[in-house]
Formats: sequence, C-alpha cells, structure tokens
Amino acid sequence: MSDTNSTGGKTVKTAITPSTHTAPPAKFSHGVRKGNILQVAGQVGFLPAVEGQAPTPAGPTLREQTLQTFANVKAILEEGGASWDDVMMMRVYLTDTGHFAEMNAIYNAYFEEQGLKEAPAARTTVYVGLPRGLLIEIDALAVLS
Amino acid sequence: MSDTNSTGGKTVKTAITPSTHTAPPAKFSHGVRKGNILQVAGQVGFLPAVEGQAPTPAGPTLREQTLQTFANVKAILEEGGASWDDVMMMRVYLTDTGHFAEMNAIYNAYFEEQGLKEAPAARTTVYVGLPRGLLIEIDALAVLS
Amino acid sequence: MSDTNSTGGKTVKTAITPSTHTAPPAKFSHGVRKGNILQVAGQVGFLPAVEGQAPTPAGPTLREQTLQTFANVKAILEEGGASWDDVMMMRVYLTDTGHFAEMNAIYNAYFEEQGLKEAPAARTTVYVGLPRGLLIEIDALAVLS
Repeated sequence: MSDTNSTGGKTVKTAITPSTHTAPPAKFSHGVRKGNILQVAGQVGFLPAVEGQAPTPAGPTLREQTLQTFANVKAILEEGGASWDDVMMMRVYLTDTGHFAEMNAIYNAYFEEQGLKEAPAARTTVYVGLPRGLLIEIDALAVLS
Repeated sequence: MSDTNSTGGKTVKTAITPSTHTAPPAKFSHGVRKGNILQVAGQVGFLPAVEGQAPTPAGPTLREQTLQTFANVKAILEEGGASWDDVMMMRVYLTDTGHFAEMNAIYNAYFEEQGLKEAPAARTTVYVGLPRGLLIEIDALAVLS
Repeated sequence: MSDTNSTGGKTVKTAITPSTHTAPPAKFSHGVRKGNILQVAGQVGFLPAVEGQAPTPAGPTLREQTLQTFANVKAILEEGGASWDDVMMMRVYLTDTGHFAEMNAIYNAYFEEQGLKEAPAARTTVYVGLPRGLLIEIDALAVLS
C-alpha cells in the first residue's frame, strides 16, 4: 500500500497481498482498497504459504480453521491500513449448522482477546458447500475512517 | 445513533441495536453505520424479543417469515437513519428453489405497500442451509444520501 | 444513467437497466448506483432478452454460462459508467465444487482478454443451490473513481 490512496486527484484501487498468504487460485486479490473502502476476499484456514507446497489448512478442526481464518483476514486488513475496528460486515460460511454454536464461542473469545470493546461488525452466517476439508470461509467489508 | 456520524473530524462506526430485536447469538451487531454506509446483518423471521424467551420465528410459513424478516431489516435501517430507499443491495437466502416464486410475490406486494415507486435495490438470491425451522434470511447494504 | 449522480446537492440512487437484459423476476434492479458506489445484482448466464420468450441460458455448459454471466455483469457496469477496473468484489456462486478449477481457467482467460493488468478484485466463491439448469451466478460491488 502506498501512503496515499489517490493519484492526481483520482482514487486508485490497490491490491492487498500479504506476503504470508498462499497465492490465490485465480486472477484475484486477497484484498483490495479504494479510497476508504477495503474488501477482503473469502479467506479460509490456510497456513502461511510454504514455497513449493500446496495450500494447507491449519488443521482438520473447526477451531483450528476458524482461528487461522481470522488471522488471515486480519493480515489483509492490516496490510491495507485497517483493523478489525473498521470492519462493517463479516460473512461467515459454514458447512454444517451443527457448527454454529462452537463457531460463535470461538468467535467471541477471539474478539475478546483482540480487545474489541464493541461488537466488531454486522455478520451473516449461512451454510454452503466448500472444497473438501474446509469447514469455514469468511470475507469482510471494511470502511476506513 | 447520535445525530452526527463523526467526532473530531473522524468518521465513527456506530452499532445499530433496535430495542425490539433479539440479542445476536454472538458478539456482532444487527447493523452498523459509518459515514454514509449502513450494513444490516443477516436477519431472519424472529418476532420481537420477549425477555427470558428464546428467539421465536413469526411462524412456520415462508410468508410469515419473509414479512417478519422485512420488518426486522426495516427497523435496523430506520434506527440507523435510513430507509428502504437507501438500500443498494439485498441478499436473500432461501433453503428451497421451490420457494422462489412465492417469495417474489410476497416481496413485490410488500414493496408496493411500502410505496416504493422504483425497484428498491439490486438483489441476489441463492439457496443455502439455514438453522432448522428458518426458511429465509436477508441482509442489506445501504448508502445514505 | 444521468450524467451526474446528484441533484440539488443530494446523492441519488439510480437503477441500471441494460436494454438487452431479461426483466428481473421481481421488483429489483440489475444494478444500482449511488454516488461512487455501484452494485451489480446476481447475474446468471441468460442470453439477451427476446420479447415474448422466457429467459434462456447461453447453454448447458459451465463455459457458456460463465462467459455469458461475465458479459451480463460487464453490461451493467458499463451502463452505470464503470468498468471491470472499478470492481472491488465479485461473489461467485457455483453449484458443484468439481467446477472450481474449470471456472478459474475460464475466469483467468476472460480477464486476460479484457486486458486487465492486475487481478480485478477480491473474490469469494461458495457452493450453493441455484435454479435448475443454472451452474453459476455472479454479483459485484464496484467503487468508481
């Protein structure tokens, strides 16, 4: 990210690409920022990239994947000059309605640890299909101050 | 909501919490507003909260749940200083493709009753899993004038 | 679209209705713009509308439907004064995880043909149900300069 987000009076769109992230599976960015709007692409629980190795989830459990997914979202927010405080909306995609209560418990503990006084954002949770082995995906829309 | 949406030149994020709404099942807000952007979290057909009682859908039918969901979205918009006219996007989550035509009929009648001259927004409808007993969930993005 | 997007100092919301598009199945718009924000509703692979004929997909294959869906999104962006360069987020809804690799190949080739130097946007892909015969749906959020 450059310090400013405009050039010659024009607002520019900047790709956000944390160096730790695995390469996206197609021509898209893990995050983009334009003016005060920052969009985080759907993140899953992949561990930091290891060269020559396929993307690997943090573990098979919902807990491992949820915490890694939060870390991946946070890295993109920070690389784009934002924080959890700027997030307006999180979309949580789970694969099993039976995971809702456990995800909420992990979610609440995580945001308490992050020191957020208030509820961080609006949220929608729905149950969809995800690639085999993945239990959660999260994307986020942030508006910077 | 405070009258203004900034403090000391900084745009602040404000949680929107209609008093009639059931408490969210985790640390998130039914709505948030920052500057001119208002995000409504995924709403379902829960009746207004009754203390000491678990959230209860307006009824088992698509019609009952859809109308209550619209009422819940509208309450958040209004609490945040917005109206249906400001909504840019609605995401409609159904559980059954067989509900599409009926939902559209309820949707059209509702927005006609609301007196909207034009189509209120863009919309995406997809078919997902929802917690047992729930047939529809809707979230919305609004941009205020 | 009018040339300006405000009237008397107030930002107005404008429906975007490309003449080639099939009529939406309910009271919503294929796209809306307000200020610098443009939201594209969920698009599928329907061919340009033919009067008196029901909406018809470009073909039964993922390739045919994906390319037509891109064309439909692009038409709305352009009608609203935007282009692929302004897109911040694309949501891709597939019906089958087995389609992911093929969709990515079609996606990459398409955006290369469109001459985009950079990854066009953030993206989330999830697997949902869609009406029978439809294999892909895409919506998009754009922020204009």
